[in-house]
Amino acid sequence: MKIKVIVTLKNGVLDPQGKAIQQTLNGMTFDNVSEVRQGKYFDIEVNESDENKAKSQVEEMCKKLLANLVIEDYKIL
Amino acid sequence: MKIKVIVTLKNGVLDPQGKAIQQTLNGMTFDNVSEVRQGKYFDIEVNESDENKAKSQVEEMCKKLLANLVIEDYKIL
Repeated sequence: MKIKVIVTLKNGVLDPQGKAIQQTLNGMTFDNVSEVRQGKYFDIEVNESDENKAKSQVEEMCKKLLANLVIEDYKIL
Repeated sequence: MKIKVIVTLKNGVLDPQGKAIQQTLNGMTFDNVSEVRQGKYFDIEVNESDENKAKSQVEEMCKKLLANLVIEDYKIL
């Protein structure tokens, strides 16, 4: 079963990479872009047919490896 | 209006970063993870109240800057 996860910076955490993308977009005709924030996306294939079990395993992975919970949030899709 | 975008590697394009994450997960009790692929996620705030217009602008941004269409696909959520 394939589980999708998004990891984003928490609100209030500076995102210089997103800021750079925003400024670049503003400079190339997209001047109505007021903010860009970048995050990470993971497609995880788990050998587990029960969706709830698979998701709870992926949640465990987020807490232990994929996200830094001090500055990041994760969302399992 | 906030538009969310996911950029992923196309199928068949090697993803060494995802492979490294998979091997790390396998080594830390998650031995039923058979594949991980990593992508990028963007939260884009566009000053445009019409959702369709905002999405078509973001599509333009994906084509011109955010995704490398030779090796990546984008999906506007």
